[in-house]
Amino acid sequence: MPYPELVLKGKKAKDAAYQLGHLSSQVKDKALEAMAEALIAKEEEILAANALDVESGRKKGLSKALLDRLLLTPKRIEEMAEGLYALVGLSDPIGEVVHQWKRPNGLEIGQVRVPLGVVGIIYEARPNVTVDAAGLCLKTGNAVLLRGGSEAIRSNMTITRIIAEAAEEAGIPAGAIQLIETTDREAAQEMMKMNEYLDVLIPRGGAGLIQTVVKNATVPVIETGVGNCHVYVDSDADLEMAENIVINAKTHRPGVCNAMETLLVHKDVAKKFLPPVSNRLMNLNVELRGCPRSVSIVPGINEATEEDYNTEFLDLILAIRVVNSFEEALDHIRRHGSGHSEAIVTNNYSCARQFTRRVDSAAVYVNASTRFTDGYQYGLGAEIGISTQKLHARGPMGLNELTTIKYVCYGDGQIRQ
Amino acid sequence: MPYPELVLKGKKAKDAAYQLGHLSSQVKDKALEAMAEALIAKEEEILAANALDVESGRKKGLSKALLDRLLLTPKRIEEMAEGLYALVGLSDPIGEVVHQWKRPNGLEIGQVRVPLGVVGIIYEARPNVTVDAAGLCLKTGNAVLLRGGSEAIRSNMTITRIIAEAAEEAGIPAGAIQLIETTDREAAQEMMKMNEYLDVLIPRGGAGLIQTVVKNATVPVIETGVGNCHVYVDSDADLEMAENIVINAKTHRPGVCNAMETLLVHKDVAKKFLPPVSNRLMNLNVELRGCPRSVSIVPGINEATEEDYNTEFLDLILAIRVVNSFEEALDHIRRHGSGHSEAIVTNNYSCARQFTRRVDSAAVYVNASTRFTDGYQYGLGAEIGISTQKLHARGPMGLNELTTIKYVCYGDGQIRQ
Repeated sequence: MPYPELVLKGKKAKDAAYQLGHLSSQVKDKALEAMAEALIAKEEEILAANALDVESGRKKGLSKALLDRLLLTPKRIEEMAEGLYALVGLSDPIGEVVHQWKRPNGLEIGQVRVPLGVVGIIYEARPNVTVDAAGLCLKTGNAVLLRGGSEAIRSNMTITRIIAEAAEEAGIPAGAIQLIETTDREAAQEMMKMNEYLDVLIPRGGAGLIQTVVKNATVPVIETGVGNCHVYVDSDADLEMAENIVINAKTHRPGVCNAMETLLVHKDVAKKFLPPVSNRLMNLNVELRGCPRSVSIVPGINEATEEDYNTEFLDLILAIRVVNSFEEALDHIRRHGSGHSEAIVTNNYSCARQFTRRVDSAAVYVNASTRFTDGYQYGLGAEIGISTQKLHARGPMGLNELTTIKYVCYGDGQIRQ
Repeated sequence: MPYPELVLKGKKAKDAAYQLGHLSSQVKDKALEAMAEALIAKEEEILAANALDVESGRKKGLSKALLDRLLLTPKRIEEMAEGLYALVGLSDPIGEVVHQWKRPNGLEIGQVRVPLGVVGIIYEARPNVTVDAAGLCLKTGNAVLLRGGSEAIRSNMTITRIIAEAAEEAGIPAGAIQLIETTDREAAQEMMKMNEYLDVLIPRGGAGLIQTVVKNATVPVIETGVGNCHVYVDSDADLEMAENIVINAKTHRPGVCNAMETLLVHKDVAKKFLPPVSNRLMNLNVELRGCPRSVSIVPGINEATEEDYNTEFLDLILAIRVVNSFEEALDHIRRHGSGHSEAIVTNNYSCARQFTRRVDSAAVYVNASTRFTDGYQYGLGAEIGISTQKLHARGPMGLNELTTIKYVCYGDGQIRQ
């Protein structure tokens, strides 16, 4: 391996993980508090490092959206600290006996919740991920190896140093929170193959980053985040409810993965439903791109391309399609969806039941907005992302999803017959 | 993609999976029975195909062990059929509501158990895996794409045709059970990258096969099976109990993954414990390979190399090491173990507690044989392998581990505030 930093930090993380799994919740919670306090106390240091990143990003010509994601403010630093305090209040999943039972031969078999070990996070411009990921991993007894984007390297180095020092002073082993400081592509590629040191790799960022990690990693990956979400307004829908759900799913926060990207409308209600909802959407600055039938109902909107139906806009853009039937709606979702969140608005029992059964997505809604796919909204607490894959975790990945189990078996001399 | 067979069968599997998830348990169970009956009814056809495989294997100079794994007999076919009947008796996990709760806004959120989708299995010489895997996948509503070794191709083709036909006649969609008939390496490599069609890939076979799949697959993999298992006899052990556990863990079935490969003995009991247990082991034809101290206590046994401590012998060979302390035993397991199954024999409360907490393996035993790591022994029923990784499944992978969940949320117009 040509990157000694990776090997060195990988080993250190593994050693730290060996101890982290047995720390008491008290020690971990104290450390989270200390990390939050340190962020606030050293706010100026962080802002100074961030200013250099932003300045250099501006010179490199980063887009306005990217610069905004990169930018830290006193308020954003406070939010990072609050995220850590929020974790303190959550119960520690480690050590929970999930099930325990006794076999006929007297052997007692228990499933005990334990940390995954070392979690690798590959992310892009947002320095708040550094704190988020470090906090979630520490709470669940995992060591974390962070690898942020080069745009944010000064911010990430400063933040990591501050929180890692605070954690160590509070009794967390050195190596529990580390940042890979080599930011070239080759180092990231190598990190994706560090099976000896990493138990799991979680990419956080856009579709491009996620696909690169999925295609190149030999370490097990959890795929998060790409959400090409649909709302289907059925012929039996309460149209006022449908309108509110559509407005909410599209405009409440268009830049996040659980926002709606395509609206499907049953032909029987299209003429009644589309004009008023289109008006409201356009008044909220949403650009509409419709199928030929939607364009004929709402003249003046753009025509959608096939590619639009495959796109996660993450923006105030909405693709619309009028469908002939419930089956056609299911088929559209099956062909274009990313398996994140889909909603049906209907008062028809059979359609509601069929939709929840046959749509193969992490979250399926009847008569509710797709915007609810979120750890806090589900009552699960902080999350590290929304998994759109089927192994290990699906949907909001909270504390439990950063753990695994082991079987602990108590006997008094049992041997197999 | 240069292998049209893979794309064709991948698509067919995906289409089948879309329907399989909604079949009633009755239809699936009837199909399992029909498959079992067909295996028995067409026994001669299977034996004839298998005879050709064995003949050609003999000509190619396959080892005796490999030829034995390849060989089918009426008894082995009967066992395959019995495996299918056993699945009929197990309850269907699909559709189970794992949890459901209500949020303050009235939104009801349920976690519902659903199939993974399409499961790929890459395996070696044993044709019984074909039936095992097909049965487990069908019971859990998954489509299966099988890719067996070239040595067994005629047997696998015949078996797959027989069970797939029987399943289809019983109402299972075509494409639910398929075998990849191209047996060259490149086809397997390509299968490992079929992310579009496969939801998970499970290799079943030796360490070499498993490592090839882990290193090359972009499809999520579940690693199964490599077991370099340890029994540690503590200074506070009941030595009679320890002797029985050691004999059982080594000799009850030495060729399987949960058999012990290394015996660790605390120095304080080594002189008393090692001579009698070594005698019994040698009488059972076990070859012993010891550290210098064990050799001085049991003269005449071979000296172990460092490599022996890393080896899963799967044979009547046992590595032995005398350790100075409990900590040294933990350290040995940490450095050499494969994370499968480890046991401590002790009457010391603190050592038992420390061992179960600090040994990072799928299964950890106090005063019991490692041979219990098995779906049926745990009372979990049929399994597709023992997972030694931490994501998704750890330990025996039964029916539940071939499923995932989706969130199904019922509302009456809820939107996010």
